[in-house]
Amino acid sequence: MRYPYEDIENVPDDIREQILAVAEKSGFVPNVFLGLARRPAEFRAFFAYYDALMDKETGSLTKADREMIVTTTSAANGCLYCVVAHGAVLRILSKDPYVADQVAVDHRHADITDRQRAMLDFAMKVTREPAAVDDADHDALAAHGFDDEDAWDIAAITAFFGLSNRMALVGGMQPNPEFYLMGRVPREKKG
Amino acid sequence: MRYPYEDIENVPDDIREQILAVAEKSGFVPNVFLGLARRPAEFRAFFAYYDALMDKETGSLTKADREMIVTTTSAANGCLYCVVAHGAVLRILSKDPYVADQVAVDHRHADITDRQRAMLDFAMKVTREPAAVDDADHDALAAHGFDDEDAWDIAAITAFFGLSNRMALVGGMQPNPEFYLMGRVPREKKG
Amino acid sequence: MRYPYEDIENVPDDIREQILAVAEKSGFVPNVFLGLARRPAEFRAFFAYYDALMDKETGSLTKADREMIVTTTSAANGCLYCVVAHGAVLRILSKDPYVADQVAVDHRHADITDRQRAMLDFAMKVTREPAAVDDADHDALAAHGFDDEDAWDIAAITAFFGLSNRMALVGGMQPNPEFYLMGRVPREKKG
Amino acid sequence: MRYPYEDIENVPDDIREQILAVAEKSGFVPNVFLGLARRPAEFRAFFAYYDALMDKETGSLTKADREMIVTTTSAANGCLYCVVAHGAVLRILSKDPYVADQVAVDHRHADITDRQRAMLDFAMKVTREPAAVDDADHDALAAHGFDDEDAWDIAAITAFFGLSNRMALVGGMQPNPEFYLMGRVPREKKG
Amino acid sequence: MRYPYEDIENVPDDIREQILAVAEKSGFVPNVFLGLARRPAEFRAFFAYYDALMDKETGSLTKADREMIVTTTSAANGCLYCVVAHGAVLRILSKDPYVADQVAVDHRHADITDRQRAMLDFAMKVTREPAAVDDADHDALAAHGFDDEDAWDIAAITAFFGLSNRMALVGGMQPNPEFYLMGRVPREKKG
Amino acid sequence: MRYPYEDIENVPDDIREQILAVAEKSGFVPNVFLGLARRPAEFRAFFAYYDALMDKETGSLTKADREMIVTTTSAANGCLYCVVAHGAVLRILSKDPYVADQVAVDHRHADITDRQRAMLDFAMKVTREPAAVDDADHDALAAHGFDDEDAWDIAAITAFFGLSNRMALVGGMQPNPEFYLMGRVPREKKG
Repeated sequence: MRYPYEDIENVPDDIREQILAVAEKSGFVPNVFLGLARRPAEFRAFFAYYDALMDKETGSLTKADREMIVTTTSAANGCLYCVVAHGAVLRILSKDPYVADQVAVDHRHADITDRQRAMLDFAMKVTREPAAVDDADHDALAAHGFDDEDAWDIAAITAFFGLSNRMALVGGMQPNPEFYLMGRVPREKKG
Repeated sequence: MRYPYEDIENVPDDIREQILAVAEKSGFVPNVFLGLARRPAEFRAFFAYYDALMDKETGSLTKADREMIVTTTSAANGCLYCVVAHGAVLRILSKDPYVADQVAVDHRHADITDRQRAMLDFAMKVTREPAAVDDADHDALAAHGFDDEDAWDIAAITAFFGLSNRMALVGGMQPNPEFYLMGRVPREKKG
Repeated sequence: MRYPYEDIENVPDDIREQILAVAEKSGFVPNVFLGLARRPAEFRAFFAYYDALMDKETGSLTKADREMIVTTTSAANGCLYCVVAHGAVLRILSKDPYVADQVAVDHRHADITDRQRAMLDFAMKVTREPAAVDDADHDALAAHGFDDEDAWDIAAITAFFGLSNRMALVGGMQPNPEFYLMGRVPREKKG
Repeated sequence: MRYPYEDIENVPDDIREQILAVAEKSGFVPNVFLGLARRPAEFRAFFAYYDALMDKETGSLTKADREMIVTTTSAANGCLYCVVAHGAVLRILSKDPYVADQVAVDHRHADITDRQRAMLDFAMKVTREPAAVDDADHDALAAHGFDDEDAWDIAAITAFFGLSNRMALVGGMQPNPEFYLMGRVPREKKG
Repeated sequence: MRYPYEDIENVPDDIREQILAVAEKSGFVPNVFLGLARRPAEFRAFFAYYDALMDKETGSLTKADREMIVTTTSAANGCLYCVVAHGAVLRILSKDPYVADQVAVDHRHADITDRQRAMLDFAMKVTREPAAVDDADHDALAAHGFDDEDAWDIAAITAFFGLSNRMALVGGMQPNPEFYLMGRVPREKKG
Repeated sequence: MRYPYEDIENVPDDIREQILAVAEKSGFVPNVFLGLARRPAEFRAFFAYYDALMDKETGSLTKADREMIVTTTSAANGCLYCVVAHGAVLRILSKDPYVADQVAVDHRHADITDRQRAMLDFAMKVTREPAAVDDADHDALAAHGFDDEDAWDIAAITAFFGLSNRMALVGGMQPNPEFYLMGRVPREKKG
């Protein structure tokens, strides 16, 4: 492996603590943490940005909406890690075992709301033709109740995961096997 | 729904028998059967072609290889129905719960053999730039033991599902919910 | 030749009969028949599908309309065999010696009706971006009197010849010389 | 018609003489002459350039080679006028009734020499990605005996007809009916 | 250098005079003159066309508008020579030190008028998809006061510089260093 | 302006200090600082990432190399702000008044070293087709002395500015006028 995952024993203390907290919550360490930990300064900035966008408490985007944006645009960029990992979180947050696979193939044929489709249309344009985004795109969002701060959120999530996709792809990161099944089987059947 | 699924009571006898046989084997009627049954003559030709390619007993392509071609190229064409339905069969035949999701995002990052990658490189070229296929593509296949009849098989499966993808998309066919989970959970855990 | 045309002596009886019937009508055996006859099961399914779409008696598409769809989309896929062979039939059925060459270059500059242009716009979208076809495309057809069954016909013809184009290209099939001149010279001048 | 063909009575004398000379040779006035005559200064520059490239007596490109470049690249640009008019001249100069239709669909499947294919590969790259042309492209030409002056000729013909294609398309010029049949019927049959 | 600039001593008299006149006006000989002078007949036609389009006294395009079209479309074609040389002239004629850099990156984000944006939208369509230009594009121009003769001017300038871009790229022409700074520093600061 | 620049009086103290430090060094406040300061958490993460990549002291990329990557890939994404601002820094660091304009149009025709061209080829592939990056791309870098950590640096800079480009474009940020002229006029002439 060209860029081996870092050994958790070798990372700075603050990063180890952050990783262990995630591991406790998830039950495993998602590979992106160890893939990025080789570069502590980049790691810290990456996850600070991540938290600023994904844990943000304001605006009209739900957490499931945000994961839907990530899953959709990551598929457009061909990033397996992000499609599988964020698709898993999308299934859990939306309590919908199908939607992640649907938006990963093509959000236009997914069983989502018109509001979500408008959100993803905007995200796809930011992904593919950012210089072509114009007032008409903001108007299309506004027609579904998204204001300019929401538009910024959609754009920022899209742009940040465009960065994430590229690092996961060039870094050769693979999704942990656990992600593939998460959120697919109703809880009661698991027990 | 613009093109409603046909009621199984209304289809010609031979088509009803064929559908019931599939239902008995699968436990449900895949939507493509009822989506195409509105047009009996097309239905019969479609499934005759399907069987000629997918149940063929000669050549070096395994049945899992064929489903891998279908899953990969259907994702390139944006066809949710075929990605989900054939991805399910791919998981079952390959006994690999991950590979379908991997090739659907990008076969170049999937955990497959070099031979399978060459097979999918060829299939993707037939999908995207059929007029550009040339001797070098056949040579790349030959380097992995695929002869000209195998190349024809790969091309024919790709071409046939390019047709299937377009009918499923224009026809508005959605994958049955059962497909999404098939082959993801090991058999013993199901029992 | 990687995939030689089959010798008519070696094909199953039903296929030979079918080919001889075409030869009697056309005066020669179009190469696609011998190119596909190497694979009898595929041959039978291919021509059953072909007949279901091209000889269909219902709907508002004329036979010339169907050949126009084939010529236009085959040019987009870069398939010489289908452009030349179906362009010939288009010239004969439409009694127009120019239209086939026009739509093969770009249907938007062809001397056709607005209704035909809408039909070809739809066919081109099915060819190039099948996942993007949506209600607006059906509405554009409806504005010219095409109902949903007509839309299915246009899509199915387009999709089927996308398959045909790929097999002719990968199979290395070349149009018979006879096709190039058919329908170009008015009958009375030939005598 | 947005840009009507100029009336030959209204054009400057030198242009009328030039047009009449062509008409005498061809038996009709190709529409591009009357389409451009509205703008005498552009007309004169256009045809001076045309003659400098197409009537040039030096270098290894035959006149048929030049018409083959024009037919191929004009098809890539979607220009009906140039495909039909120059395809006609190509048929006549090459004494081949098929080659024009072949290169118009895709030169890679045409029945031409390897040298002509290299020539057209270069012309297509100049058409589609001129900034990507590099030493490897010149080397590929040199392998078939084309020197740097020949490469300039190929590029200049391609570039000039890229201009011509755009003026014919925006100007709405249609090929004269005479062009469609020229060179398709052997001379002796015409008599 | 594959295509060396011609020595001014070796060019025909009329070409030398033309070049010396430019040199006197500009203070240096722009490389395109010596790059094209190797081919006197092409040189004469090229600059006759150039003058017919760029020195034209009629129509509503200002000379700055024309240089803006050239800068924008040359950037789309990746032609450094034309972007730098015509960007310089654009800065001088528009008395705006920023606009050339803006349109070279993307005219949709440049600080220009809506009329200029419509002009450049049309020019970009002629550059990229000439066969798709239709009445709606002419209507969009008309909404800003451009008549059909202006549309022809925009198309012709775009088409001519598409030719120029290809010759500069294949010919390996580099902008003279003088062009890079022209029009960036206000006159009074130069003195 | 949809997303107005933040008033420096209203930003958190740490951000104000950071901005004032830049202003003191540059002589003005680059608009990206006030454009992002509306979102303090994103601002802090953005510039922490920026510093981690651009002020990094290890590896073989010079600071001018990094600015060259930013200028080249930002032009591909159509981001005026980044092309103009980082082009200015590139001119200053490289002491070359021409190179920024060259790589912004097309790095393949810029007057740069083969090593820089390989670096930019890699960056452009990460920009445009990140899922297609493979071992051959790393080998091409290695042939010019770039090791895997350098490859990571190139990819990370490219990916980070892909994010930056999208925020500047959607955010409507315009380059400060000062950037356009920086590094174009030799120092002694300024005095």
